[in-house]
Amino acid sequence: MSYFKNIGKIQFEGAGSNNPLAFKHYDENEVVLGKSMKEHLRFAVAYWHTLTMNGSDPFGQGNMVRPWETVSGLDLAKARVEVNFEFLEKLGAPYFCFHDVDIAPEGATLKESNENLDVIVAKIKEGMKQSGVKLLWNTANMFSNPRYVHGAATTSNADVFAYAAAQVKKGLETAVELGAENYVFWGGREGYESLLNTDMGLELDNLARFFQMAVDYAKEIGFTGQFLIEPKPKEPTKHQYDFDAATTISFLQKYGLQDKFKLNLEANHATLAGHTFEHELRVARINNMLGSIDANQGDMLLGWDTDEFPTDLYAVTLAMYEIIENGGLGSGGVNFDAKVRRSSFEPEDLFYSHIAGMDTFAKGLKVAARMKEEKFIDCLIDERYASFKSGIGADILSGKANFKTLEAYALEHSDIRNKSNHLELVKARLNELIFTTK
Amino acid sequence: MSYFKNIGKIQFEGAGSNNPLAFKHYDENEVVLGKSMKEHLRFAVAYWHTLTMNGSDPFGQGNMVRPWETVSGLDLAKARVEVNFEFLEKLGAPYFCFHDVDIAPEGATLKESNENLDVIVAKIKEGMKQSGVKLLWNTANMFSNPRYVHGAATTSNADVFAYAAAQVKKGLETAVELGAENYVFWGGREGYESLLNTDMGLELDNLARFFQMAVDYAKEIGFTGQFLIEPKPKEPTKHQYDFDAATTISFLQKYGLQDKFKLNLEANHATLAGHTFEHELRVARINNMLGSIDANQGDMLLGWDTDEFPTDLYAVTLAMYEIIENGGLGSGGVNFDAKVRRSSFEPEDLFYSHIAGMDTFAKGLKVAARMKEEKFIDCLIDERYASFKSGIGADILSGKANFKTLEAYALEHSDIRNKSNHLELVKARLNELIFTTK
Amino acid sequence: MSYFKNIGKIQFEGAGSNNPLAFKHYDENEVVLGKSMKEHLRFAVAYWHTLTMNGSDPFGQGNMVRPWETVSGLDLAKARVEVNFEFLEKLGAPYFCFHDVDIAPEGATLKESNENLDVIVAKIKEGMKQSGVKLLWNTANMFSNPRYVHGAATTSNADVFAYAAAQVKKGLETAVELGAENYVFWGGREGYESLLNTDMGLELDNLARFFQMAVDYAKEIGFTGQFLIEPKPKEPTKHQYDFDAATTISFLQKYGLQDKFKLNLEANHATLAGHTFEHELRVARINNMLGSIDANQGDMLLGWDTDEFPTDLYAVTLAMYEIIENGGLGSGGVNFDAKVRRSSFEPEDLFYSHIAGMDTFAKGLKVAARMKEEKFIDCLIDERYASFKSGIGADILSGKANFKTLEAYALEHSDIRNKSNHLELVKARLNELIFTTK
Amino acid sequence: MSYFKNIGKIQFEGAGSNNPLAFKHYDENEVVLGKSMKEHLRFAVAYWHTLTMNGSDPFGQGNMVRPWETVSGLDLAKARVEVNFEFLEKLGAPYFCFHDVDIAPEGATLKESNENLDVIVAKIKEGMKQSGVKLLWNTANMFSNPRYVHGAATTSNADVFAYAAAQVKKGLETAVELGAENYVFWGGREGYESLLNTDMGLELDNLARFFQMAVDYAKEIGFTGQFLIEPKPKEPTKHQYDFDAATTISFLQKYGLQDKFKLNLEANHATLAGHTFEHELRVARINNMLGSIDANQGDMLLGWDTDEFPTDLYAVTLAMYEIIENGGLGSGGVNFDAKVRRSSFEPEDLFYSHIAGMDTFAKGLKVAARMKEEKFIDCLIDERYASFKSGIGADILSGKANFKTLEAYALEHSDIRNKSNHLELVKARLNELIFTTK
Repeated sequence: MSYFKNIGKIQFEGAGSNNPLAFKHYDENEVVLGKSMKEHLRFAVAYWHTLTMNGSDPFGQGNMVRPWETVSGLDLAKARVEVNFEFLEKLGAPYFCFHDVDIAPEGATLKESNENLDVIVAKIKEGMKQSGVKLLWNTANMFSNPRYVHGAATTSNADVFAYAAAQVKKGLETAVELGAENYVFWGGREGYESLLNTDMGLELDNLARFFQMAVDYAKEIGFTGQFLIEPKPKEPTKHQYDFDAATTISFLQKYGLQDKFKLNLEANHATLAGHTFEHELRVARINNMLGSIDANQGDMLLGWDTDEFPTDLYAVTLAMYEIIENGGLGSGGVNFDAKVRRSSFEPEDLFYSHIAGMDTFAKGLKVAARMKEEKFIDCLIDERYASFKSGIGADILSGKANFKTLEAYALEHSDIRNKSNHLELVKARLNELIFTTK
Repeated sequence: MSYFKNIGKIQFEGAGSNNPLAFKHYDENEVVLGKSMKEHLRFAVAYWHTLTMNGSDPFGQGNMVRPWETVSGLDLAKARVEVNFEFLEKLGAPYFCFHDVDIAPEGATLKESNENLDVIVAKIKEGMKQSGVKLLWNTANMFSNPRYVHGAATTSNADVFAYAAAQVKKGLETAVELGAENYVFWGGREGYESLLNTDMGLELDNLARFFQMAVDYAKEIGFTGQFLIEPKPKEPTKHQYDFDAATTISFLQKYGLQDKFKLNLEANHATLAGHTFEHELRVARINNMLGSIDANQGDMLLGWDTDEFPTDLYAVTLAMYEIIENGGLGSGGVNFDAKVRRSSFEPEDLFYSHIAGMDTFAKGLKVAARMKEEKFIDCLIDERYASFKSGIGADILSGKANFKTLEAYALEHSDIRNKSNHLELVKARLNELIFTTK
Repeated sequence: MSYFKNIGKIQFEGAGSNNPLAFKHYDENEVVLGKSMKEHLRFAVAYWHTLTMNGSDPFGQGNMVRPWETVSGLDLAKARVEVNFEFLEKLGAPYFCFHDVDIAPEGATLKESNENLDVIVAKIKEGMKQSGVKLLWNTANMFSNPRYVHGAATTSNADVFAYAAAQVKKGLETAVELGAENYVFWGGREGYESLLNTDMGLELDNLARFFQMAVDYAKEIGFTGQFLIEPKPKEPTKHQYDFDAATTISFLQKYGLQDKFKLNLEANHATLAGHTFEHELRVARINNMLGSIDANQGDMLLGWDTDEFPTDLYAVTLAMYEIIENGGLGSGGVNFDAKVRRSSFEPEDLFYSHIAGMDTFAKGLKVAARMKEEKFIDCLIDERYASFKSGIGADILSGKANFKTLEAYALEHSDIRNKSNHLELVKARLNELIFTTK
Repeated sequence: MSYFKNIGKIQFEGAGSNNPLAFKHYDENEVVLGKSMKEHLRFAVAYWHTLTMNGSDPFGQGNMVRPWETVSGLDLAKARVEVNFEFLEKLGAPYFCFHDVDIAPEGATLKESNENLDVIVAKIKEGMKQSGVKLLWNTANMFSNPRYVHGAATTSNADVFAYAAAQVKKGLETAVELGAENYVFWGGREGYESLLNTDMGLELDNLARFFQMAVDYAKEIGFTGQFLIEPKPKEPTKHQYDFDAATTISFLQKYGLQDKFKLNLEANHATLAGHTFEHELRVARINNMLGSIDANQGDMLLGWDTDEFPTDLYAVTLAMYEIIENGGLGSGGVNFDAKVRRSSFEPEDLFYSHIAGMDTFAKGLKVAARMKEEKFIDCLIDERYASFKSGIGADILSGKANFKTLEAYALEHSDIRNKSNHLELVKARLNELIFTTK
C-alpha cells in the first residue's frame, strides 16, 4: 500500500527543473573531501514532524491533510510505520529518529504503554531490515503528558521521577533492540516557571542522578551508542536548565559526566539562546562535545521555536564548516527537526520541505569543503595569530612567561601596532565562495 | 574645597519628604536578620560613572555639568580624587571601585601611565585614611584603548597580551597598596566580532593562562582579596566569552580555576543574556560562586546596556533574597555600576540617583528579610519537594534507586497525582509582603 | 448545582489574610476621584481562559482539572454557561467576554454552528437577566478553524472571506441580542507568513472592506456598541497587520474608518511589539482611540504571548494613570485576557488568579488617583514645557513663527540652557507614591 | 594631493580575483530591465561614516587610521572635502550624503556655524562641478549637540525649537545651493526617555508644525527635492516617534502631511523595530511612500544599530525586488549608511566595505530582475488570489457584496477547501534563482 501515490522515488541530480520534486545540487555519491556526501551528511527524518504533527498551533486546530489518518490507536501507529519507510525510501534518507510516544500510543498504565511499544518496535525492526534504513537516535517524550507538568528528572514529585526513569529504561531497551546509534535527552520540562518555588540545587542534583542511572543501565544492557543532550533555553519552560552548549557543559563538568555525553545541537535553539548556530557548534567542538545536529532554522524576529526547514545557505555553510573541522559527526547525523508551515498542509509538502533542506545542506557542505580546501579560514587564522608562534607569544603559550616577564617586555614594547581584520573583505570573499561553488 | 557646595550630608531617615535629597526608608544602622543594614549592603560608588562619565552616547556629545572639569591631565585626576571623597562622605557610602584609567590619565608609554597611577594612588590612599572609606575593588580597563581592539588576554597580538599583563600586574599592586577587598575582571573585548577569523580554542586557553598568571602574581605579592569575574554576553563585542554565570563557571571548571574566582554579577548584563538577575544570582549561589554584585537595571525593551540606577523593587527584593540565602556577599558588596540618564546632567543628579538606588536596595533588603523570617519561600519549597524526604524519593536522593527499582515502583504507581503550584497566589502573596513591609 | 463547591462568594475587604481567597486592598465601593472603584474598573472575565482553556501548550497536553468536563458537545456548552455565572457571581465581577466558538460548539455546517449559538445565546441571556452580569464584548473566532489558515478578512480564498463575514454577521446579531457594550476584532490570522506570496495591498483593502461591511450591518440592525480593534504584532502569524496602536490607527486613517473604531489594547501584545503598555495606551489616548483593555502581563524575557495575570504594580499603575487621563474607558472595561499557568491547574487557581489581578488593578487605580490628585505628573509637565506658554514658544504654538523668524530669534539666543529632568528623582518619588498608598 | 595613494580607480568587472579591490559581478553599465545598473542603483556614500567616523564605541576610544587627520577645524573640514571627491571618484559612486556638522565644524554661535558652512559648501560645490558627482541628500544633525538632549522639534525648550528651525533653514538653503535631490529628517532625539515627564501630544503637534514650516520655507526658496523621513524605533532614545514606516505614515496622515513626505528606510532600523527590511519597503510601497533607502545591515542577535555594510544576498534581493516593484526610487538612491567594523581600521577598508556592499546590491538587483522577468512572485500571487477575479470574490472587490449576501453564499459554501502555499518549495526555488543568477 502506498500513502504517497503520486510521488515516486526522488531523483535529485539530473531531473529537470520543471519537476517541483527535483532539485539540482545534491548527488549523494559525489565525493567531497574524500568521502561521499551521503557519508558526510547522514540525513535523518524526524518521526514527530513527519508522521504525527497535525498543524495545530497555540491559536489553531490541526489542519494537515494526511491520508493515513483514517484509523486510530495502534492501527494508526502501525500505518505510520509503513508511511515512515515509504517516505524514507522515496526521499532517499538513510536515518530516522523518534520519541517513544511518536511511534506508539500511550496506554492507561505504564505497562500498557510498554506493551504498545513492543508491538510497534517489532514492526519497525522488520521495516528497518527490509529497507536498510537505520535509527539515528530515539528518545523518550517526558514533556507532553500532564504528569510532567513540574518536570521529569527535575520534578518536585518523586513518583514522576520514577515514571520518567521507567520510560528511559524502556527507551534504552528500544535503542538496543533497534540498534540506535545514539540516545537523546531533551529536557522540555527540565527547568522552572518561577524561582520563587524552585529548589534549583536539588533539581540539578536530581538531573545528574538521572543521567548517571541512564549511563549505568546502558552499560548493564550493552547499549553502546552515544548519549546526547539537546540544549534549549526556554519554551515550554520559562527557563530550561540545558540553556545552551556552555551551560550544559558546565553541568556535565560539575557532576563528572562530561565523558559520557555529547551535545545534539539545534539551530533554532541556538538563536533562542541568543547565539548563532555556528557559535554553539564551535563551543561544542572545542570542548570535544559535538555529537549530532537538529537541522532547522528559526525566524530571527520571532521569539519561539518555529522549527522551519533550513534554507539559509549562509547559516548552513558555516554549520557544515564546523562539522568538517570536527572531523564529522561520528555516530551523529543531520536530523531534520523541522516542520512544514501550517499553510503547507498537503502530503507533498513533506517532500518539498525535506528536499529543500537536504539540498541546502548538500550545497552548504560543498561550499564548506571548498572553504577548507582553499584554506579560506585557515589562512585568516594563521596570519592573524602569527605573533604567538615565536618570541613573547611562544613564551606565553609554553608557560614560560609570567606577569613580571611580560611587564618587562611591555615596558620595551608599549607602542603597539595591530592589523586590520578587513572583515568586510572577508565577508565579500565568503559571498564569492558561496556564489561560485557549483 | 567643595565641589557640591549646595549639598550637605544626606540625612536618610527623619528628613522631611519636601527635601528632594531625603528619602524615607533607609537607616543604615537598623538591624535586619541580626546585622545592621550597612553590614548587609556594603554600598559602593563607581568612580567611572560618578567622576569621569560625561554623558556622551553613540549619537551625542558629552553634556554633563561637572564643576571639577576646569583643569585637565593629572590636575583633573587629582581633583576627581577630592570629589570622590567628598561625594562618598556626603552620601554616606562606605566603598568605592575604579578602573586604572578612571583615576589617572594614560601616558604616552606604559612607564608614564604607571607613574601617573603612582601619584594618584598615593593621593587616594591618603583620602581613604582620612575618610575611613574603603576600596571594594579595583580593575584594569583593557577595552577602551585602541590597542585592545582585538581583545586583551584573548587578543590575536602577543604584544597586546603582554601589555595587558603589565596592566593587571600594576592593578594587583594597586589593590595591595589600597587594601582592595576584591579584584575584578570584566572582559569587555574578550570575545569575538566574527567566528570566521577567530581561533576560539586558542583565545580561551590564553584567557585561562592570563588568569592563572594573575593568581600566581597575587600570591607572590600577598594580595589576599577575592578574584571576581564579571560576565556579560555582548557589547561591545558581538559575543563575549564570559556570556553569563553558567558559561563563566564552565570556563573556570575546564581550566581548574573554579576555586580561585567568584562572580561579580550585574543586573543589566543578566537581562542582556536573556536571564533575570535573580537567575544569575541563583546559579552562582548553588555553585558557591556568588561574590559581589553590580547594582543597576536595564530597560527590558532596549538591547544595550543602559546601566540605569536600580529602582524596581521586585527585582531588588529577589536579588537581596538570593544574597541572604548566600549568607551575604562576604568580601563583596553592592556597587552602583549605574549612570545618571543623559538628561539628568546636573551634579545633584549624582546624589538623587544614588539615593534612589540605595533606598530601593534598603527596602528590598527589608522585604527579603521578612520573606526569610516568615519562611515565605522556605515553606513553599519544603512542601513542594516533600516527596523526596521519604520512600522512593529518599531512595533517589540516597543513591539506592536505579532504573530497575524505579521501573518496578512506577509499574505500581503509574496513576500520578501532582499538586498545583498556585503561582498566581504566590505572586499575590509576594505583593502583599512588598506592600506591607515598612 | 455548584461547580466550585468549596468556594463561597469572595470577600475582598475585611476578610483575614489567613484566607487565601481574600486580599486586602480592593473594596469595589470605595470612592476614588469621585467614582466607585467598580465604576472605574469594570472588570470582565474572559470565557476562553476561564471556561474552555485546558492547559495545553505547544509541547504539552491539556492538564486542567475542571469539574464540568464530564459531558461534551452542546451539553458541555450549557454547563459552561452555568459555571460562568457561578464564577462571576462568586468573584464579584460585573462583566464577561467571549468568542463565538467559546460558548457553542462549531457544527458541521455554518447553519448548524449558528443553531448551536442560538441555543446557548438564549441560555446566556437568561443567565444575564438573573445575575445582573453584563457582556462587555463578544467577538468571532476567525483563527482556530483550519479554514482560516490563510486569513479571514485577509484570506487569499474568497469563500473564506464570505464565511468570515457570515460569522461576524452572527456575532453582531448576538451582540444586539445580549446587549454587548462593544464588539471586538482581533485578527489572529490577518497577517502573513511570507511576503513572497502575499499581496499586502489587496489584503489590507479587503480588511477595510470587511470592517466597512461590519459598520454597515451594525447600523442596519441597530447595534450601538463600540467597535474595537485589538492590535498584536505577531503570533500566530509571522506578522499581523494590526501590529500596534500606531499601525492600526494608520490603517483606519487610510480607509476613513477612524471614527468608527477604537482600540482594545493588551499589555502582553504591547511588549511583543517592543512597547510598554503605557506607551500603547498613550498613543491611543492622544488620538482619541483608547476604548478598552485586555489586562494581563507577559514575560519580558519570553518571545510569545504568555497571558499571565497582571501582578506588576508598576505597569498597572501607569496603565491606570493613562485611563484616568482618558476620562475612563467609556463603554470599555478591564478584561482579564489572562490564563492560569499550566502548573496552576486546580479550579481554585481560577479564583486566586483573578483576585491577584483585580487586587493589583485596584491598588494601581488608587496609586494613579493619588498621582493625579497630588499633580505628580501634571507638575512635571507644566514646569518642563513652560517655555511654550509665552514668547517664542507661544509664537510656535500659535502658528505665528516660521523658519525666518525662528532663525532671527536663534541668532540672538544661540547660547542655550536646558534643565535636568532629574529622572532618577522622579522614579524615586514614584516609588514613594506606590509604597505609601494604602 | 591624494589621500589614498596606493589605491587607483576601482575596476569592478574584469579585474582578477587576486586583487582584493576587484570583485566580479558589478558592471554599472550592464542593462537590467531596460535600464543600466547605475541608473537602478544610484549608490551614495555617507560622509559621516566615511570621512568623520573615528571608530569609537560606548566602551572604546577612536582607533581609525585616517591620513587626513593631521589638521583640525576648518582645515580638516576642507581636507575632508578633498578626500570625499577622491574617494567617490576612485570608487565610482555617483552620489554622496551629509549632515551639516559632518562637513563643517560647529562654531561658538549659530552665526559662526553658518559661516563655516558657507566656506565648505562653496568648496563642495566646486568639487561637484569638477567631478560630476551629485548630492543625493543632505540633512541637519539635531541630535549630537548637548542642546538637543531633550529633543529638537520635540524639545521641551522653545529656544531649542528655534535653533533647530534655524539649522534646517540653513540646510534647505544648502540643498538648493548644491542641487540636493532630497532632504532628509532623522529624528534621533525626537522621542522620549520616560513617559512620566513627556507631553506626547504637544511634542507630536510641534513635530508637525516643524515639518510644515520646512515645507513652507522650501516652497519659498524654490527647493524642489523630495522631503524624506527616516524611521527608527529607538536608540539613542528609549522610544523614537518615527518608530517604523506605519507609525510615520500614521503621523503624516494625522497632520495632513502625507503628500509632502516620503520615507528613507534603513535595513538596520527595520530590524530594531521587529520587522524585516522588505516589510518596511512593502508598507511604504503600497502607501506610495517609498522614497530612498539607507543600505546596511544589522546583527539579528544584537539590540543596537550596528550599521554593517550589507552583504546578505537574501535580504538585498528582496529589498531590490520591492524597489523594482516600486518602479525604482525616483529621486532617491541607495545610500551606504554603514560603517566599517572597529577592527577594520585601515583606509583601504573603506574601499573593501563599499565594494562588498555595492557588489551585493548589484547581484541582488540581478536576481530580483530575474524574479520579475520570470514572474516568480507574480505567478504565485496571481494563482493564490485567483478567487477574487470572478464570482463572489469579484463581488467583494467591486463593493457589490455585503454581510447578508456573503452569509447567503457561505450557507451554501460552508465546506471550504484551501490550497497549500508550498512555502518550502517557494524558498527552495528562491535559492535556485539566487544561486543560478550570474
